[in-house]
Amino acid sequence: MEAYRLLYPMRTYLVVSGRGEETNVMAADWVTVVSHRPTLVGLAVSPKRVTWGLIRKYGEFVIAVPGLDMIDDVWIAGAEHGPEKIRKTSIEFLPSRAIETPSLKGALANLECRVVDDRTYGDHTWFVGEVVSYSYREEAFRGGRPDPSAGFLAHTYRSEFVTFAGRTYRPNVRTDGRR
Amino acid sequence: MEAYRLLYPMRTYLVVSGRGEETNVMAADWVTVVSHRPTLVGLAVSPKRVTWGLIRKYGEFVIAVPGLDMIDDVWIAGAEHGPEKIRKTSIEFLPSRAIETPSLKGALANLECRVVDDRTYGDHTWFVGEVVSYSYREEAFRGGRPDPSAGFLAHTYRSEFVTFAGRTYRPNVRTDGRR
Repeated sequence: MEAYRLLYPMRTYLVVSGRGEETNVMAADWVTVVSHRPTLVGLAVSPKRVTWGLIRKYGEFVIAVPGLDMIDDVWIAGAEHGPEKIRKTSIEFLPSRAIETPSLKGALANLECRVVDDRTYGDHTWFVGEVVSYSYREEAFRGGRPDPSAGFLAHTYRSEFVTFAGRTYRPNVRTDGRR
Repeated sequence: MEAYRLLYPMRTYLVVSGRGEETNVMAADWVTVVSHRPTLVGLAVSPKRVTWGLIRKYGEFVIAVPGLDMIDDVWIAGAEHGPEKIRKTSIEFLPSRAIETPSLKGALANLECRVVDDRTYGDHTWFVGEVVSYSYREEAFRGGRPDPSAGFLAHTYRSEFVTFAGRTYRPNVRTDGRR
């Protein structure tokens, strides 16, 4: 058992880096939020990845949220190396709003990030980016609430992915506090 | 729309900190893996949280993986403040294997972490811990593979939680690369 696997299934995202001919896309599970105000997100990237050099070079990345319909692209982006793989996918780029790194057409959301810090932790670099702009598909986040049936992808193990069941659960307790 | 919500639904975990009478439990969505070897995990905690002071004081925390049967405890742990709330929950502690901070009985897994770094990012502190030991329920992680039907909890919005659908999806493409 790999200890980190105990946190799985984890949501899987697509990370866009670079620009023009250099533009690359990597699948990433090791992504989270690290601050509310300002909105900062963190991403662990191995220095072996082409994405690592592109984020270092341009100080920008986009975190795109793939739906179940993008599972093949997620797999290729995670399994293969460098921008040549893009030709094997159905990925299309769109201009971002605030940064030069493009967003992904067809993604459920795109978070445009400018790097504010990087740190080495073990065998990965931890890039922290401020979300400077974003776009999303209204039907997946109506009223600011993610719709669990939108097909959000999570990674289980090797080539296995899951999505959420449609049913929403609420606690049976009331509290005066707030989350 | 809060931009960070575009990464949701995100897995939700319980973070144990402190020891003895001080032992506290907090719900946390902002958790991820940051290194494979050594296995390092990161966790964003607001300095307003009791957990923040306890992690600083003892340099340890446990990330417990709650199942759907613990949704009420997750809600109380997330909504209320300090160790007094534990009495309102059905939480029971177990000794951990390698650290003094206890694990949670009934959790699907417990990852015992020793802090190796902390950084301030915006309004949260980013604690990075090395996973020095762990325990898990075999039926939820048979053969090292998380079983999507084990009732892993994800947080959608406010008091709304979801779990994964049982069906596993695999990409329809083959690749010579590896993820």
